[in-house]
Amino acid sequence: MAAFESGGREVTGMAEMVEKVLEQSLGKTVLIKLRGGKTLRGLLEGFDQHVNLVLRDTELITDPNNVERLGTIILRGDNVIMISPPPSD
Amino acid sequence: MAAFESGGREVTGMAEMVEKVLEQSLGKTVLIKLRGGKTLRGLLEGFDQHVNLVLRDTELITDPNNVERLGTIILRGDNVIMISPPPSD
Amino acid sequence: MAAFESGGREVTGMAEMVEKVLEQSLGKTVLIKLRGGKTLRGLLEGFDQHVNLVLRDTELITDPNNVERLGTIILRGDNVIMISPPPSD
Amino acid sequence: MAAFESGGREVTGMAEMVEKVLEQSLGKTVLIKLRGGKTLRGLLEGFDQHVNLVLRDTELITDPNNVERLGTIILRGDNVIMISPPPSD
Amino acid sequence: MAAFESGGREVTGMAEMVEKVLEQSLGKTVLIKLRGGKTLRGLLEGFDQHVNLVLRDTELITDPNNVERLGTIILRGDNVIMISPPPSD
Amino acid sequence: MAAFESGGREVTGMAEMVEKVLEQSLGKTVLIKLRGGKTLRGLLEGFDQHVNLVLRDTELITDPNNVERLGTIILRGDNVIMISPPPSD
Amino acid sequence: MAAFESGGREVTGMAEMVEKVLEQSLGKTVLIKLRGGKTLRGLLEGFDQHVNLVLRDTELITDPNNVERLGTIILRGDNVIMISPPPSD
Repeated sequence: MAAFESGGREVTGMAEMVEKVLEQSLGKTVLIKLRGGKTLRGLLEGFDQHVNLVLRDTELITDPNNVERLGTIILRGDNVIMISPPPSD
Repeated sequence: MAAFESGGREVTGMAEMVEKVLEQSLGKTVLIKLRGGKTLRGLLEGFDQHVNLVLRDTELITDPNNVERLGTIILRGDNVIMISPPPSD
Repeated sequence: MAAFESGGREVTGMAEMVEKVLEQSLGKTVLIKLRGGKTLRGLLEGFDQHVNLVLRDTELITDPNNVERLGTIILRGDNVIMISPPPSD
Repeated sequence: MAAFESGGREVTGMAEMVEKVLEQSLGKTVLIKLRGGKTLRGLLEGFDQHVNLVLRDTELITDPNNVERLGTIILRGDNVIMISPPPSD
Repeated sequence: MAAFESGGREVTGMAEMVEKVLEQSLGKTVLIKLRGGKTLRGLLEGFDQHVNLVLRDTELITDPNNVERLGTIILRGDNVIMISPPPSD
Repeated sequence: MAAFESGGREVTGMAEMVEKVLEQSLGKTVLIKLRGGKTLRGLLEGFDQHVNLVLRDTELITDPNNVERLGTIILRGDNVIMISPPPSD
Repeated sequence: MAAFESGGREVTGMAEMVEKVLEQSLGKTVLIKLRGGKTLRGLLEGFDQHVNLVLRDTELITDPNNVERLGTIILRGDNVIMISPPPSD
């Protein structure tokens, strides 16, 4: 995977931005698009620096008419394309 | 693989959340969705930081009518999409 | 992934070039081509050294007639092919 | 690949669990499911921390009626989905 | 990914060769073949040790009759197969 | 890729086992199964810790009636599934 | 990716073997098989520890009747399956 090294000043600030958005989403419902086209919806309970996630009350949405309840899951970050935090208010 | 560096404060707390859910599942039956669409069900006996897992009394569920008994297995974490711990009570 | 080591002199200068273009794009609308052929358009709010991105007012453009509003998202860098910063003026 | 950092206490204990099951399988026949659907059966003679394996008297089982004798092999861990140690007695 | 360690003497010299060709291409038009068969043409403005590139006046060439103007882009190195620097004179 | 950390005692012993089998194969003919289904046969002249290999008098065996002589090659370890050392005597 | 740790003695010797064959090929024509079935032929001008290569007078050989002249290129090592150095004399 491609990464760029840096002096760490500004990029650390930016990384904190990524982290901050995840932290602000804790305890809230997030949407997660997975590789392969499926979507998860669940309450974000935890994450780590590899974007491994703990989700509660998770639903796997294959298509709008096909929702599978998964309860609590640990999701490996490798499978994540993007995470939509709840709309800020 | 994408990861973000951080000061380690909050993220460590979060990582412990991922770890904690795995630890709470030890000795209990978990469901594991694998890349490629198959599911494993087994008693979680061990894990490491790469989500390599040791499972006992494992069953490979290709479809609801096709269950293959695998006994104890070591599962490489690379193949895991998500892990469903048992419902907490 | 392939990378080459170096004395760090010139390459650091170059890495700062990559970083600088991302920094100059903060708060502006960027286009992102994803693996698999889809495009995202959104306001760049943050990034880290793995090209994980935070985007606001994001739109997923499957084709010109199919735009899905995603709001704020965290995008894992693994899925990014390229990022088009806004035209400099 | 996704991994989570930790304080190392409990996770080290767990990693030893993964290692312990491999060690207990040394000199015994294991079944190995490979990416792509094939199975290997062989005597486990060695392993390393990347799950690279040395197997003796190995058989490649494409389907139950198609068994190819491979003798001793070095298997790269990248290709392994799971390892079934012999039933404990 | 496969890499080999070395004492660093000669290989460092070689790495500098890779870096040197990229440096000599700065400010010049390069051709880049991407995974998946597409080609980019653009002015090389920056690179880092993971072959992440900054390109200006970039064109995406799907086929000779289909050229899309992309302007300035940041290209993640993971997607690069090869880079053709301008003919030396 | 999944790896597990360990105290290094026993696993180092095991890693030496993997290395030992490769060393014992130096100067002998090995069979190598590649990702994608092809097989190489050649004299093992060198290897490194990433299972990059140097082979002499190499033959690429697409099928039993289709053998292409390749001479000496450097094979990147990423493409290797397994290596069959010569039968010990 | 799978790698094995070692005490470094013998394996370093072997790594030097891989490096030595590349070094002996500098300034000579090598054949390179790429993932996806294409072949490159070019003069090896440089390499690094990730098998990133600099080639001069490069030709991309899709099939024997379809040779495309590429001139000097930087090839990312990820795309390489094997390298055939010139026959030693």
